[in-house]
Amino acid sequence: MNQIAVFSGGAHPELAEEICAELGVPLNPTRVKRFSNDCIEVQLQANCREQDVFLVQTFSAPVQDHLTELLLMLDAARGASAARITAVIPHYAYARSDKKDAPRISIGGRLVADLLKTAGADRVLTMTLHSPQVHGFFSVPVDHLHALHELARHFQRHDLSNTVVVSPDLGNAKTAAAFARALGRPVAAGAKERISDTQVRISAIIGDVRDRDVIVLDDEIASGGSILELLKHLRANGARSVRIACTHGIFAGDAVARLAAEPDVVEIVCTNTLPNALRQPHAKLTVLSVAPALAEAMRRINNGESVSALFAEGAHPQRAAAE
Amino acid sequence: MNQIAVFSGGAHPELAEEICAELGVPLNPTRVKRFSNDCIEVQLQANCREQDVFLVQTFSAPVQDHLTELLLMLDAARGASAARITAVIPHYAYARSDKKDAPRISIGGRLVADLLKTAGADRVLTMTLHSPQVHGFFSVPVDHLHALHELARHFQRHDLSNTVVVSPDLGNAKTAAAFARALGRPVAAGAKERISDTQVRISAIIGDVRDRDVIVLDDEIASGGSILELLKHLRANGARSVRIACTHGIFAGDAVARLAAEPDVVEIVCTNTLPNALRQPHAKLTVLSVAPALAEAMRRINNGESVSALFAEGAHPQRAAAE
Amino acid sequence: MNQIAVFSGGAHPELAEEICAELGVPLNPTRVKRFSNDCIEVQLQANCREQDVFLVQTFSAPVQDHLTELLLMLDAARGASAARITAVIPHYAYARSDKKDAPRISIGGRLVADLLKTAGADRVLTMTLHSPQVHGFFSVPVDHLHALHELARHFQRHDLSNTVVVSPDLGNAKTAAAFARALGRPVAAGAKERISDTQVRISAIIGDVRDRDVIVLDDEIASGGSILELLKHLRANGARSVRIACTHGIFAGDAVARLAAEPDVVEIVCTNTLPNALRQPHAKLTVLSVAPALAEAMRRINNGESVSALFAEGAHPQRAAAE
Amino acid sequence: MNQIAVFSGGAHPELAEEICAELGVPLNPTRVKRFSNDCIEVQLQANCREQDVFLVQTFSAPVQDHLTELLLMLDAARGASAARITAVIPHYAYARSDKKDAPRISIGGRLVADLLKTAGADRVLTMTLHSPQVHGFFSVPVDHLHALHELARHFQRHDLSNTVVVSPDLGNAKTAAAFARALGRPVAAGAKERISDTQVRISAIIGDVRDRDVIVLDDEIASGGSILELLKHLRANGARSVRIACTHGIFAGDAVARLAAEPDVVEIVCTNTLPNALRQPHAKLTVLSVAPALAEAMRRINNGESVSALFAEGAHPQRAAAE
Amino acid sequence: MNQIAVFSGGAHPELAEEICAELGVPLNPTRVKRFSNDCIEVQLQANCREQDVFLVQTFSAPVQDHLTELLLMLDAARGASAARITAVIPHYAYARSDKKDAPRISIGGRLVADLLKTAGADRVLTMTLHSPQVHGFFSVPVDHLHALHELARHFQRHDLSNTVVVSPDLGNAKTAAAFARALGRPVAAGAKERISDTQVRISAIIGDVRDRDVIVLDDEIASGGSILELLKHLRANGARSVRIACTHGIFAGDAVARLAAEPDVVEIVCTNTLPNALRQPHAKLTVLSVAPALAEAMRRINNGESVSALFAEGAHPQRAAAE
Amino acid sequence: MNQIAVFSGGAHPELAEEICAELGVPLNPTRVKRFSNDCIEVQLQANCREQDVFLVQTFSAPVQDHLTELLLMLDAARGASAARITAVIPHYAYARSDKKDAPRISIGGRLVADLLKTAGADRVLTMTLHSPQVHGFFSVPVDHLHALHELARHFQRHDLSNTVVVSPDLGNAKTAAAFARALGRPVAAGAKERISDTQVRISAIIGDVRDRDVIVLDDEIASGGSILELLKHLRANGARSVRIACTHGIFAGDAVARLAAEPDVVEIVCTNTLPNALRQPHAKLTVLSVAPALAEAMRRINNGESVSALFAEGAHPQRAAAE
Repeated sequence: MNQIAVFSGGAHPELAEEICAELGVPLNPTRVKRFSNDCIEVQLQANCREQDVFLVQTFSAPVQDHLTELLLMLDAARGASAARITAVIPHYAYARSDKKDAPRISIGGRLVADLLKTAGADRVLTMTLHSPQVHGFFSVPVDHLHALHELARHFQRHDLSNTVVVSPDLGNAKTAAAFARALGRPVAAGAKERISDTQVRISAIIGDVRDRDVIVLDDEIASGGSILELLKHLRANGARSVRIACTHGIFAGDAVARLAAEPDVVEIVCTNTLPNALRQPHAKLTVLSVAPALAEAMRRINNGESVSALFAEGAHPQRAAAE
Repeated sequence: MNQIAVFSGGAHPELAEEICAELGVPLNPTRVKRFSNDCIEVQLQANCREQDVFLVQTFSAPVQDHLTELLLMLDAARGASAARITAVIPHYAYARSDKKDAPRISIGGRLVADLLKTAGADRVLTMTLHSPQVHGFFSVPVDHLHALHELARHFQRHDLSNTVVVSPDLGNAKTAAAFARALGRPVAAGAKERISDTQVRISAIIGDVRDRDVIVLDDEIASGGSILELLKHLRANGARSVRIACTHGIFAGDAVARLAAEPDVVEIVCTNTLPNALRQPHAKLTVLSVAPALAEAMRRINNGESVSALFAEGAHPQRAAAE
Repeated sequence: MNQIAVFSGGAHPELAEEICAELGVPLNPTRVKRFSNDCIEVQLQANCREQDVFLVQTFSAPVQDHLTELLLMLDAARGASAARITAVIPHYAYARSDKKDAPRISIGGRLVADLLKTAGADRVLTMTLHSPQVHGFFSVPVDHLHALHELARHFQRHDLSNTVVVSPDLGNAKTAAAFARALGRPVAAGAKERISDTQVRISAIIGDVRDRDVIVLDDEIASGGSILELLKHLRANGARSVRIACTHGIFAGDAVARLAAEPDVVEIVCTNTLPNALRQPHAKLTVLSVAPALAEAMRRINNGESVSALFAEGAHPQRAAAE
Repeated sequence: MNQIAVFSGGAHPELAEEICAELGVPLNPTRVKRFSNDCIEVQLQANCREQDVFLVQTFSAPVQDHLTELLLMLDAARGASAARITAVIPHYAYARSDKKDAPRISIGGRLVADLLKTAGADRVLTMTLHSPQVHGFFSVPVDHLHALHELARHFQRHDLSNTVVVSPDLGNAKTAAAFARALGRPVAAGAKERISDTQVRISAIIGDVRDRDVIVLDDEIASGGSILELLKHLRANGARSVRIACTHGIFAGDAVARLAAEPDVVEIVCTNTLPNALRQPHAKLTVLSVAPALAEAMRRINNGESVSALFAEGAHPQRAAAE
Repeated sequence: MNQIAVFSGGAHPELAEEICAELGVPLNPTRVKRFSNDCIEVQLQANCREQDVFLVQTFSAPVQDHLTELLLMLDAARGASAARITAVIPHYAYARSDKKDAPRISIGGRLVADLLKTAGADRVLTMTLHSPQVHGFFSVPVDHLHALHELARHFQRHDLSNTVVVSPDLGNAKTAAAFARALGRPVAAGAKERISDTQVRISAIIGDVRDRDVIVLDDEIASGGSILELLKHLRANGARSVRIACTHGIFAGDAVARLAAEPDVVEIVCTNTLPNALRQPHAKLTVLSVAPALAEAMRRINNGESVSALFAEGAHPQRAAAE
Repeated sequence: MNQIAVFSGGAHPELAEEICAELGVPLNPTRVKRFSNDCIEVQLQANCREQDVFLVQTFSAPVQDHLTELLLMLDAARGASAARITAVIPHYAYARSDKKDAPRISIGGRLVADLLKTAGADRVLTMTLHSPQVHGFFSVPVDHLHALHELARHFQRHDLSNTVVVSPDLGNAKTAAAFARALGRPVAAGAKERISDTQVRISAIIGDVRDRDVIVLDDEIASGGSILELLKHLRANGARSVRIACTHGIFAGDAVARLAAEPDVVEIVCTNTLPNALRQPHAKLTVLSVAPALAEAMRRINNGESVSALFAEGAHPQRAAAE
C-alpha cells in the first residue's frame, strides 16, 4: 500500500505525536484557521497525493469544534487526492446517541457516521464503542479495538490473588467478564433498577465482593456519579479496596478529584484516548497509552494485514470485530 | 395524503387480511410467480400510481424467499409510480445480526436495511426490534411499535395480585420492568453467565419469585431452550406457576409443545407478528393480534398524525420511538 | 402543501419568534440537551409527520455548535417523517470558504452544503451569500434573498440628494450599484491593491465623494478593519459624513463601538440575520428586521408561489436568483 | 494488483474448488450459519484485508438462499476491508427478468444488479447472459464470458462433416450462427409463433436439416419442454441424429432423463455453471468445465490484462463484451 | 396532484404545442441562449414551484444539443422547486446503444438514463423503445407507450382482406404479430443472415406474401436501406403492393424520397415522435400524431390514474409496460 | 501507480498528441461512430484494465457534441475496468454558467460537473477556470492549473522596461496583478460600469498607461468586443502599443482578424487549450503550448507527487489550488 501520512486535529495532538513516534513517521503539520466569523478553515501542510492518509482526532470537548475540524480535514485530504483516508477517532463520543428512545430525537451516532462518509472518510479506526451495534451505523469499514489488553497488562503487575472484577452495571458485564478471565479472576456486577422514567439506581451487587480487592471496570467515566454510587454498595458488601479502570476518561468537571477523594479508592486507571485525564493529574491516577495499539493497527491497515489477528494471541483479552 | 393501497407477500397473508379489515380497505392481490429456474417474479395487481402503498411481509421462514419477495414487491411498486412505499415488517428477523462480534462476519441487520432502501422502501413499520440500536441501521424513517399493550391487556383480565414479571436475561430487563409497571407488579430477572467463549448459562434469579405466579416476558422465543433453562431456576427458587409471553413467536420445531409439556407452565402467549404459532395450535397457547395496532399506525402514517401520541396514554405501557 | 411547522435552534430564537409572529404560527419548542461528554442531542417537541418543516438556525458564533445543532435537528425531523424540511439559514457563514486558493485546504462552503443534505435538508432559504457562485454548491434547491430592499427603505426616509453609495471594494461594487440605483444615487468604490501575498490595502477611491454624504454598503462586517481603512480614504477624498450599511452584522469583538467612535460615522445599519448587533446596542446602531422577508418567502415556499416574483416590483432593488 | 483470495458460497463449491486448483490458490473456507429464526450469517474465514477478493456463487436453486448468502458475503468482505470484491456468478439466473412486459411487475435482473452493488460488489464476472442488454443493468464493470469455446472444442473431436447447428428459436440464432462458424458448419433455426397471449409454439424449421446430424444449441435448458417440441419438428424434417448443447444446465425435475429418453438424442452437453447436471448423471450426459475459463479471466482481472483479448484468437468463437 | 406546467425544448415544439392543445394548458416559454463559446443556458419562463412539470424534448438531430438542452432544463426545473419533473422523450434515440457487443464501448442507453436522473428527472414518458430491456436501464419510473394503436386505426380504414403484415427482421416479429392480430391479419417476416462479422443480409421471407398487399412494420426507419433490401425479397416472393409503417421516422438524408420512389410502395406511414418527416413532405407520406396519446398519458400521470389501463381495451393492440 | 493510458476525444487531438509526445507514451486510438440517428458511440481502442486512464477533451465548439463524446468515453473507460479515470479538460467552457442570476435558469457549471461524475470521472485536470469558486462545484478532486507561467515566459524575452499589464475589468485584476509581479511590472485595469440591466461599459482606466507598452491580460477572449472597447480607452489614455494575452482563445467568428486589424495591436498571444486559434493563423498571432504543463501535471498525478509544488518555484507566477 501507499506511504502513510499522519495529520492531527486540535483535539489531542499529544496522542498523535506518540502514535507517529511508534510508527517512526513524522506528524505532518495541520493549519487550523478560525476566521473572525468563527468559521474554521483547515490546511493539511504536507503532500497527501496518493498517500495512505490517517487523520487523528478524538471527540473531546469542545466536541462540535473537533468534529467540524475533522470533517474539514477529511474534505481537504479528499480534495488533495489522498489514496485512502482513515479517520482515527480514539473516542467516538457520539456512540452514546445510538437509539430512538423518545419521539423526534436525533440519533447522533448514526448521523455523525454518515457525515464522516460525506466528508470523505474511507474507513474509521476507533476504540471501545459504547455499544457494539454502533459498528453497524457506519457504511465504511471500521476497525474497532478494545483497550482491555493495556488495562490487563497494567494490573497483572500486582498481586491479584484476592481480586474480583466488578462491572457497574449489567450492560457492561460481558466485557468485564472477558477482562476478569484475562486476569484469571472472578467477576461481579452492580444491578441497576429503574425507579422512574428518568432515574436509575443500583439495587444490588451480584457476586461476592466481601473482603476482596475490587477492580471496577467501565467503558467510560464522565461525571463519576454512578461509580460513586457503586462505591457505597461495594462498601456495604464489605469490599476491602477499590481500583477503578476505564478506557475513556472523560472526567467532566473535577471527576478525578472527587473519585480520588474516596479513601478506599487506591487507584484510578484510564487510557489516553482523551486528553482530559492528562489535564487532571493526581497521585492516584494512572494514564495508560493506547498509542502503541493504534499505531500497530495503522501499520497493519497500511500493510493489509489482519487487525483481528493482532489481538487473538494466548492469554490476551479478546478484541472483537477488528478486521 | 394519497389513498392507501395494501398488498401482502406470501409470508403471512392472514395478518394482512386482518389489517385490511381493520382499515376497511381491500387487500389487493399480488401475483408471485416462481420460474422453473427458481427465480421469483412479482406483479402487484391493482393500481399503485400516486397511492400510499403498504407492502406487508413479515420475515418468517423461509426468510430468504420472503425477503426477496418483498424486495421485488418494492421494485414493482416503485416502477409503478407509487407516491410512497412503506414496508410493513412485523418481525424484522435480521435484527439479531446487529454487531460484528467476530472478524469478517456479515451484519445482516444493517445490510437488509440498505437492501430495502435500494429496492424502493420510503419507510418501514415494524414491531419490537431485538435491540433498539437497530433503528439506527435504517436511513429511511422507521415507525417502531411495541406489543406490550396487547400483552398487558391480556394479562390484566386475570388476578395479578401474586404475580411477578421475570425477564430471562438482563438484556431484556428494561422492557420487562416497563411491562411490570404497566401491570402494577414487581420485576425479576435471570442473570446469565458466560461459561466459555460459546456457552452462556443462567446463573441466578435476581429478585424474589418464591410462591409467586410468574409471567416470563421475552421479545421472541425461537427454540425455547433458554426458557426451559429458566424454568429450572424458577422452580428451584420456589415459583408457583409460570405464564410465558413474547411478541415474536418463532417456535422453531415443536417449541410450543415442548414448553407446554412443562406442568407448571399454565399459558403461553404470543402475538401474530409471525404465522408460526397459528400452525402449532395448543390448548395452552394464546395468540394475540397486532393487526389493530398496525392498522392504526398505518392509518396515522397515511393521515400524517403522530404515531407516538397513539401510545402515550395513561396506564398503557410505553411504545418508544414511534414518532 | 402541508401545514407549516417551525422550529428554532439556539443560535437566534428571537428571529424565529419574529418570523412565526409574521406567519401567525406558533414557534414549536426544541429541546437541546448537552451530555456530560459535550455531545448534543436534539428533540423536536411537536409533531412533524407530513408537516412542511422549517428549521431556523443562523450561523452565529459558536458556529460549530450551531451547525451541529442544525444537522441534528434535520436528522430528527427526517426520522420523524416530515413531508419536507427547509433549513432557514439567514447567514450562511461558511460561504466565505468558497475556493481553493491554496493547496490542500478545505472548501467549507461546499462541504457544509453537502452535510446539510446528508442530514436531511430538502431545501435551503438563505440571505445575501458572500459570492453568488455559492448557490451552485448546493444540490438541493436554494432560495436566496437579498436584504437590499430593507436597507433601501430605511435610507429613503432621509434626504438623499447629496448622497453617494460607496462599496469598500470592487468585488461588492455590482451590488452597491444596484443599491444606488434603487436610491436614485451615484456609486463609488474603493480599489484594493495586493501589496504582498498575504496583505491587501485600499489604494484609491473610484468615483467622486467630495463633500458628499456617503453610504458605505457591504455584505457583512466582521472586525470592521477594512471599513476603518476605507474611512481614512473617504476623509482624504473630502467626504462629509458616513453611514455604514450591511446585511450581516458579525461585529466581532467591540466592532460596533470602534466604528461608532469615528466622529464622521453618523449611523451604522445592519439587519438581524445575526443576533450579534442586538447584543452591542449603541445610539448610532440601527438593526432592521428581515423577519418579514423571510416569513413571506416561507409562506410562498409553502404555497408553491414564485419567490422571485415577490421581489420583482417596480423601484425595488432586485433580489436575484430566488426562483 | 493485490493478492487473490477466493471464497465460495454454498451453491456450487465444486466449481470454486476447480477454479482454485486452476489458479493454484487455496479455496478459503466460508462459515454459513443458519439461526433458528432461519436468518443466515456469513463469516469469511481468511484475511480479506487489501486482498483482491473473488466470491464464487452461482444462482442455482434455492436461488433466494444463494442470492442472500452472496449478499451477506459481499457485506462481510467489504466490512473486512477487501481491496476489491468481484462477485463471480457463473449463471445469473435473474437475467430472464429483463423487461416490463406487464404493468406493475418487478424487473428482477436490474434489481438484483443494484442489490449486489449495495452489498459491496465492485465488479461482476458472469457467463452467457440471457440477453446482452442485461449487461447495461449493472452500474459496476462486468466481464461477460461465453462458453462457446468449451462447447466447440468438445464437438470438434467428432466428425462434423454431416452436421448442422440448430437454434431452438430465432432469439438465440445469432449465437448459434457464431457457434456454427466456429465449427465450419451451416446453421438452422426453429421459428416460434405466438398462438395466444401466453402460448408460443414452434411453427417451422428455417434451413435444411434433412439427413443431417443436428447439434441443438441453446443458452440454457430448464424444463426441456421447448427442446422436446423442437425434436418433433426436427424428426418431421428428416434429421438423422440430435446432440443437445447448452451453457446453463438448469434441468428442472428430471429434465436430463426426459431428454435422454428420446432415442434420436445421442448426447446432451452442458457446462458446470450450475451444479444441477452433476446431480443427474446419465450415460448420454457430458458436463464440460468452465473452471479454466473463469480462472483465466480471474487471473487476468487480477493482473489488469485484457479479458477480451483472451478470447480473440484465431478460430475460436467470439466472446463479446469481455473488455 | 399539483398543477401541470409544460415546457418544450427546441427539438420538436410543434409536438409540444399539440400536446398542450390536447391538454388545454398553455405551452410555457423556454428561453435557450447560446453563448459565443457555444455553451447553452436555459431559462424556464413560468413558475415551476410545486408544479407537476413536464419537459418535452425528443432526441432528434442534432441529438447532443437536444440532449444537453434537456439536461439543462431538468436542472433549471429542479432548482426552481418543481414538485415533480417528467422528461417526455417521444423518441429515446440512445436506446439503440443497449449492449456491450465489443470491448470498451459505451452503453449510451444506460448512460443517458443515468444522466437524466442526475440532472433531476423524477420520471420518464417515452414511446416504442428499441428493445424492451432498455426500460430496465432507468432507475426512475418509466411510462412506455406504443404507437400501434394509432397505426392500426389508420390502416383499419382500408380494405385489409388481402393484407399481410411483414416484419423486416425477426427481432421485431413479436410486435408485428401483435399488430397483425389487431388488424385481424396474418404475419410474415424477413430472416436475416450474418454473412460476416460486420454484415447482415436478408436471406428469406418466412410466411406467405404472394399476391398479397403487404404492410411492412418496423419500430424506426433511419436510412431506409434495410427496407429497400426487404422490398427486393418481397417482390421476388410475389407481393402485390407495399405500405411501410413505423413509429419513429428518422428518415436520414432523403430516405422518404428514396422509399417513395419505389413504384410498388403505395404509402409510407409514421408518427410525429420526430419532426423529421414533417420536413420531407411527400404525396405518399402520412404522418400520424401521437400528441393525443402522450397528452392522455400525461393527464393520467398527473391524476395518478393507471396508464396501462388506458391501453387495455378490446380490440386495441397492447401497449405493454405502461404502469 | 498504474500505467498511463491516454485517449483523446475529437475536440483537439493535436493537443493530446503533443501531451503524449511530452510524456513519451502513445496516444491510444478512440473510435467515435455517429449513427444515422445522430447518436454517438465510442470505443476506446486499447486496453484500459487497471490503467491510469486520462481522457483529453477540451470544450470547443460544437460543445454539446464534445461534452457527450467525453461522457461516453468516461462510460466506456469505467466499463472497461480502468483503475482511475481523469478527465483532462483544458478549457471547461461551462464554468461561465456559475450562478443563478435570474429565476429558473440552469447552472451549467455545476450540472456538467455532476454529469462528469455520473459518467465515471474520478478526477479532473483543467486550466484557468473562469471563477475560482467553480472548483467547489466538483465533488471529485480537481487539479486546476494556470497558464500564467507560459504567458510570462513568452513576454520575458522582450524588453519590458516600458510595459504595464492591464486587466480589462476588475474581476480579473487579481490575476493580472500576479502576472505583472511575475514580469516585475506595474498593473492597471479597466473599470466597468453597468449602464442598464443588460449593458455594461468600460468607464475608466485605473492606473497609468500613458506612453506605455501595454499587455492586456484576460482569461479568455470570445468575440473580442470588450477588448476592442478597452483599446479605445487605452488610446484615449495615451498608450503606446498593445499586446493582447489570454489563456483560452475562443475567438468566435473572425475575432483574431478583427483584433489584429487594430494598428496599435502588435501581438495577440493565447495558448492552445482550444484548437480555435490554430485555425485562424495570422502574422500577429502567437499560440503557446500548454502541453508541457498538462503533461507534467499528468505525470505527477500518476506518480502521486504534489502538483502544487510544481508551480511554487522562485519567480514564477503562482498557480493556486493545484494541490
